[in-house]
Amino acid sequence: MPAQPEMQQTIALVVRQNGVGIEDQVGGVIEFLQGEGHRVVIEAETATHIAFRGVEAMSIADIGKQAAMVVVMGGDGTMLGIARQLAPFNVPLVGINQGRLGFMTDITIERMIPVLGEILRGKSKAEKRTLLEGRVLRAGQVIETGRAVNDVVVSRGAGAGMVELKVTVDGHFMYNQRSDGLIIATPTGSTAYALSAGGPLLHPSLSGIVLVPIAPHALSNRPIAVADSSQIVIEIVSGRDISVNFDMQTFASLAHGDQIVIERSPNTVTFLHPIGWSYYDTLREKLHWNEYPSDNFKLR
Amino acid sequence: MPAQPEMQQTIALVVRQNGVGIEDQVGGVIEFLQGEGHRVVIEAETATHIAFRGVEAMSIADIGKQAAMVVVMGGDGTMLGIARQLAPFNVPLVGINQGRLGFMTDITIERMIPVLGEILRGKSKAEKRTLLEGRVLRAGQVIETGRAVNDVVVSRGAGAGMVELKVTVDGHFMYNQRSDGLIIATPTGSTAYALSAGGPLLHPSLSGIVLVPIAPHALSNRPIAVADSSQIVIEIVSGRDISVNFDMQTFASLAHGDQIVIERSPNTVTFLHPIGWSYYDTLREKLHWNEYPSDNFKLR
Amino acid sequence: MPAQPEMQQTIALVVRQNGVGIEDQVGGVIEFLQGEGHRVVIEAETATHIAFRGVEAMSIADIGKQAAMVVVMGGDGTMLGIARQLAPFNVPLVGINQGRLGFMTDITIERMIPVLGEILRGKSKAEKRTLLEGRVLRAGQVIETGRAVNDVVVSRGAGAGMVELKVTVDGHFMYNQRSDGLIIATPTGSTAYALSAGGPLLHPSLSGIVLVPIAPHALSNRPIAVADSSQIVIEIVSGRDISVNFDMQTFASLAHGDQIVIERSPNTVTFLHPIGWSYYDTLREKLHWNEYPSDNFKLR
Amino acid sequence: MPAQPEMQQTIALVVRQNGVGIEDQVGGVIEFLQGEGHRVVIEAETATHIAFRGVEAMSIADIGKQAAMVVVMGGDGTMLGIARQLAPFNVPLVGINQGRLGFMTDITIERMIPVLGEILRGKSKAEKRTLLEGRVLRAGQVIETGRAVNDVVVSRGAGAGMVELKVTVDGHFMYNQRSDGLIIATPTGSTAYALSAGGPLLHPSLSGIVLVPIAPHALSNRPIAVADSSQIVIEIVSGRDISVNFDMQTFASLAHGDQIVIERSPNTVTFLHPIGWSYYDTLREKLHWNEYPSDNFKLR
Repeated sequence: MPAQPEMQQTIALVVRQNGVGIEDQVGGVIEFLQGEGHRVVIEAETATHIAFRGVEAMSIADIGKQAAMVVVMGGDGTMLGIARQLAPFNVPLVGINQGRLGFMTDITIERMIPVLGEILRGKSKAEKRTLLEGRVLRAGQVIETGRAVNDVVVSRGAGAGMVELKVTVDGHFMYNQRSDGLIIATPTGSTAYALSAGGPLLHPSLSGIVLVPIAPHALSNRPIAVADSSQIVIEIVSGRDISVNFDMQTFASLAHGDQIVIERSPNTVTFLHPIGWSYYDTLREKLHWNEYPSDNFKLR
Repeated sequence: MPAQPEMQQTIALVVRQNGVGIEDQVGGVIEFLQGEGHRVVIEAETATHIAFRGVEAMSIADIGKQAAMVVVMGGDGTMLGIARQLAPFNVPLVGINQGRLGFMTDITIERMIPVLGEILRGKSKAEKRTLLEGRVLRAGQVIETGRAVNDVVVSRGAGAGMVELKVTVDGHFMYNQRSDGLIIATPTGSTAYALSAGGPLLHPSLSGIVLVPIAPHALSNRPIAVADSSQIVIEIVSGRDISVNFDMQTFASLAHGDQIVIERSPNTVTFLHPIGWSYYDTLREKLHWNEYPSDNFKLR
Repeated sequence: MPAQPEMQQTIALVVRQNGVGIEDQVGGVIEFLQGEGHRVVIEAETATHIAFRGVEAMSIADIGKQAAMVVVMGGDGTMLGIARQLAPFNVPLVGINQGRLGFMTDITIERMIPVLGEILRGKSKAEKRTLLEGRVLRAGQVIETGRAVNDVVVSRGAGAGMVELKVTVDGHFMYNQRSDGLIIATPTGSTAYALSAGGPLLHPSLSGIVLVPIAPHALSNRPIAVADSSQIVIEIVSGRDISVNFDMQTFASLAHGDQIVIERSPNTVTFLHPIGWSYYDTLREKLHWNEYPSDNFKLR
Repeated sequence: MPAQPEMQQTIALVVRQNGVGIEDQVGGVIEFLQGEGHRVVIEAETATHIAFRGVEAMSIADIGKQAAMVVVMGGDGTMLGIARQLAPFNVPLVGINQGRLGFMTDITIERMIPVLGEILRGKSKAEKRTLLEGRVLRAGQVIETGRAVNDVVVSRGAGAGMVELKVTVDGHFMYNQRSDGLIIATPTGSTAYALSAGGPLLHPSLSGIVLVPIAPHALSNRPIAVADSSQIVIEIVSGRDISVNFDMQTFASLAHGDQIVIERSPNTVTFLHPIGWSYYDTLREKLHWNEYPSDNFKLR
């Protein structure tokens, strides 16, 4: 879409922010986009709390089929959910954040009109993000499937002791891991739960998936990144009250012998960033990389 | 007791091992102790599967009151449970392990007779271990209490997102922590779950308690060790499906506003080790401290 | 001293800050202290750049003998150096920081006059910090000694490969460690270099010393905290270009077979904090404990 | 070569092991290879200590030009050096280890004859490993270049305090890092020094490079893996006694303002593994992934 600014296109708005004056802000975006000759629609759930005369409400599925671009006003959590739902449709996403910028919502509400204008004129940096797809097999039958922008997490319940997981990658036995659980994360997810559990950052352009154990019993256990063309199979060996989740959204309770098969999704998500955007700027900002704890230390 | 070998004393046996020939081994210990002029009793649960003619079965509580020493044949897990129950009685414990030695069960079954002989003659190294006591307060009322040799763990359920905990030490606000949970460990517990979660080791003679976050959201969070004279209060700020456990034995489900108050127990546990025993020998052995991953590395 | 405000006492000023208006600030402190009836002296090195008519310059050694309190205006690095030099004299220290507060310099320049007034009237919280003393033995002879408020660090030179160190605690062999080096830190030092190398925090009231390996080759290696009554001996087994330093100040080059013997110093340092001061407030502030990287994460 | 077993080919032997009977073992390999109709040469340095009548000595450079395969008998360190030198020539390498198997020397001396036979018949698993190339720029001039199979390491000298490095990736500023140094590692190097410094494992098939800080001052700093198509520039901002090394072999002392430019080498190294070889088997074996510290823990 960004390459053909002269055509009328359908642009969808998703709004999950409730700050003061948000309606005016949304109104401004709609007016601007309509003024540029585009058809604007509002995502159905958004429409239940923000209504604009003459602006059609549309389901996520229809947005996926019809929209040339989706503008998401909210935090990274909102974007995460929308991205996962829209992944099959290959619609690019633009993220606007009213508060602190996020990894995926990187345009300030103050700058959104000029930035949207530039993006509509094709001046943007498109960035593809991989997703994971997983299916849970019990006795050879698929009992659950899920999709994740961030991560697939297998973990034990509170008070349920350790879980033992047998991990196989591309048919090769990796290890039997005893731990609180295992996080399988995309580069996008490497800045989320996996990071808290001690995982490394993966740049979004790295074609990798990282396996991060949660409180592993073997002290020499380490996070391991594999090519995202890998098929990862996790089998439940022992433990009680074990479940798997996809982006903390789809859950399945697991029994011994169940297998979770995880692969890169055939779909990707495309974010459109303003020209000049840098992943590392966001990292530094979010992770306080240029702040240091102690003057005590300056002597060194 | 070890100082007065001439007196008849009550010595209790606790057996949780089921290896081949264990009855003969236990029989040998009984015969030896009786031959030394002592009264031998068998802990009641042990007596349900190992009975010896003329050897009295006795409850843990009575053992606590009557025994001068308790010999535990089992793994560290067994010792942990017995130590917690016997803590109020100040009876020294000796640990015998049929398999790999443990942190608390450090006498091999092959050497147990001569080592028990030495211990009876006062040749042993007594080591005191601290315990934690905790109580759960809801609206000012105590709703649960527990005792821990290893740790008190507050954690979220599977799929329940993060927990937010407000931690106060000796009346000083430490932090609001968002994580999967928090482990409050004794030096004994520092080699158990706390270690898996990234905690440091605390030597048993260090009068400390260590707070180890599980997958903390704030990347600069670190384990912190405080004096064991501290009172630690953990308040549940937010999160779902949260519980606290003491050595994974006593559990309580928690609600927002609940407080867990944790202090060093007035009781301690005493382990009797053979002369020459060293905590560091056990650490090295259990933690593979003298093994290195890679020849690739030797060049350095 | 704080308990006898009516007596004239000698109070020393150490200034290492060069901010705009610092002379006026120092002048204000002198005037205030003199007005309270005290004799004010200026540390000799300070006097080389800040001179006040009628205010005597005095060496650190004489300050140690004569002063009832030392006011340090600077960062934690300044305080560290002064504290190490004054440790034998048992003079309490007060730290004023013109910029961001430090772990040891915790009074803002804006609040310094009223806070000094309160401290002079005995309203302060005294906090003792332990120091380490070390000596280097070669063929049984002491070739170097040092004192540290933060840490004793044994490390290899750049490009010198790994060092192998044999560590013994209270006569018990702990391990042979292959690494870039080893940090032996006090609770004070646990917020400095040891923290960067992955060590835990030790509260200043914990009577402990922590051993933190730098890039240890054995993956199961972990920091270990021991009682500060321990004697720690580090022997150089192999490696090239190895040295030991005490607070990065005293250095000694080491040869194979050299031993560094480290013990708690008989001296301590006393910091006077304003009433209401909390170690945890400083930790939270310096370590950003209440900031979180990712909105992406809020869903959890 | 493996595909054309009928042709006579030149096969080179490099031997760095000195175990008992190594000459007989080498003799056996030569006899076997000659018996299969191949020309066997011995690398020049090897020939200085192991000579066989009628077996020609050959320089590494000539081996690179003439050999169809190189058999390395030694540890991973030996293989590392040979691989770096042979990288420009695209000759596959086979690693035989007399002692504990390595990551790159994965054939036991007992099994080497049948395994070499299979490899000569084309039954092998070829695995490509990436290398890094770096150049040091001072005032725009290249003052040093190097190549690394494992890693490029920028670090400070002992007692030289922190180094501050400005890191730029593909023209985007990543961070100013204060630390003991920075390791830029290939997947091969991710099991070496980078692992000791807290880095993740990268599977050799992942097209990535990992940046691992050594004792970073900013507590939120984390290892980051980027695509191996990235250009990484490290500029020396401050610090004393700083140097860069490539696989600990080529060294350069650095001054403020110097830049190290690091990219994936156009060359790769190919290892030939026996059929059935798995990277994960080696990982598990070398990293003790199936061993656990504590029975104390089994209860969980």
